[in-house]
Amino acid sequence: MTERLPVDLAKAYRLLNHGPTVLVGSAHAGRRNVMAAAWSMPLDFSPPKVAVVIDRNTLTRELVDASGEFSLNVPARTIARETLFVGSVSGRDADKFADGTGVSAFAGSHVAAPLIDGCLAWLECRVIPEPHNQDRYDLFLGEVVAAWADPRAFRDGHWQSPPGAGHEWRSLHYIAGGNFFETGDAFEVKPAPESDVNS
Amino acid sequence: MTERLPVDLAKAYRLLNHGPTVLVGSAHAGRRNVMAAAWSMPLDFSPPKVAVVIDRNTLTRELVDASGEFSLNVPARTIARETLFVGSVSGRDADKFADGTGVSAFAGSHVAAPLIDGCLAWLECRVIPEPHNQDRYDLFLGEVVAAWADPRAFRDGHWQSPPGAGHEWRSLHYIAGGNFFETGDAFEVKPAPESDVNS
Repeated sequence: MTERLPVDLAKAYRLLNHGPTVLVGSAHAGRRNVMAAAWSMPLDFSPPKVAVVIDRNTLTRELVDASGEFSLNVPARTIARETLFVGSVSGRDADKFADGTGVSAFAGSHVAAPLIDGCLAWLECRVIPEPHNQDRYDLFLGEVVAAWADPRAFRDGHWQSPPGAGHEWRSLHYIAGGNFFETGDAFEVKPAPESDVNS
Repeated sequence: MTERLPVDLAKAYRLLNHGPTVLVGSAHAGRRNVMAAAWSMPLDFSPPKVAVVIDRNTLTRELVDASGEFSLNVPARTIARETLFVGSVSGRDADKFADGTGVSAFAGSHVAAPLIDGCLAWLECRVIPEPHNQDRYDLFLGEVVAAWADPRAFRDGHWQSPPGAGHEWRSLHYIAGGNFFETGDAFEVKPAPESDVNS
């Protein structure tokens, strides 16, 4: 059972701010899909917006074009294998929700796109129609209409793992060829006194 | 002295694929600046393109608008303090290249925007003019016209730290409020036999 609590929309950008690889969920007319995407980023704070590249040859693209919706899911290291799998095969050739190899999903609150179990955070998004970006660059902009996180990983607007937490609470950063970085240790930088000026 | 070797442009996306926080360098008519940006991503493989959010109120924006060029620099953990500094103050209020608090820079090969010492990799970019994106979303697209990396961190198209390397070779992932993640350990996922299908 995936644990989740709502995330204040004004803090939703923090779920993506550190640049994790995400899973893009999509659904339309009884079909659903999920793919991995290393190319996404926050685009605005409030209302929160995101940008993500969705290749024109993917089933995900077909479903997002048809539905105007998608989910961004931040996978934990524990589903790195599944992340690679859903990023390596097309939903036209394989059932990415099959027992054993694929992922399982649960329903969002605002969009029909599936949310993926085993993730640390979830963003439900509506496409901001920008046909030129979509056609020319495979670039999609979306408004985040709901956001969720596993409170064991992110709560009160901050990433914070349980004391003594292991690597299962770390997110993923895809490199290439099946290689990932996991998210490393957090640390705080104290500004030097000289830099204490208003920005 | 910053060590650097050229990166094959077809592999340049890998310098950003894992979602590091970057420094955006800019210059025009004798003025130069650098700011931190957590919101950037690769946009295409070949020719390599990138996307980055550059707020309309920044000096960086003024210089990028005027020059049509910028650099993206991937800072190492060793310059986390400087990264926070150049991301916290405006180039209109402080000299970000001042001795002691700021960064030092060297010249690129294709653009006038400064490249920043203490980084692991550098991308020289020309703006792909998309006025609607720039005006409405502060979103800039750029073509990567040259790329470089410190061969101790990235060589032969792959991130690879020296044996026994410490945290000084890790990149940064900004969270908020002066908090960063460093890039964690790399690991390889071997696809399950069932997933050995063409994508």
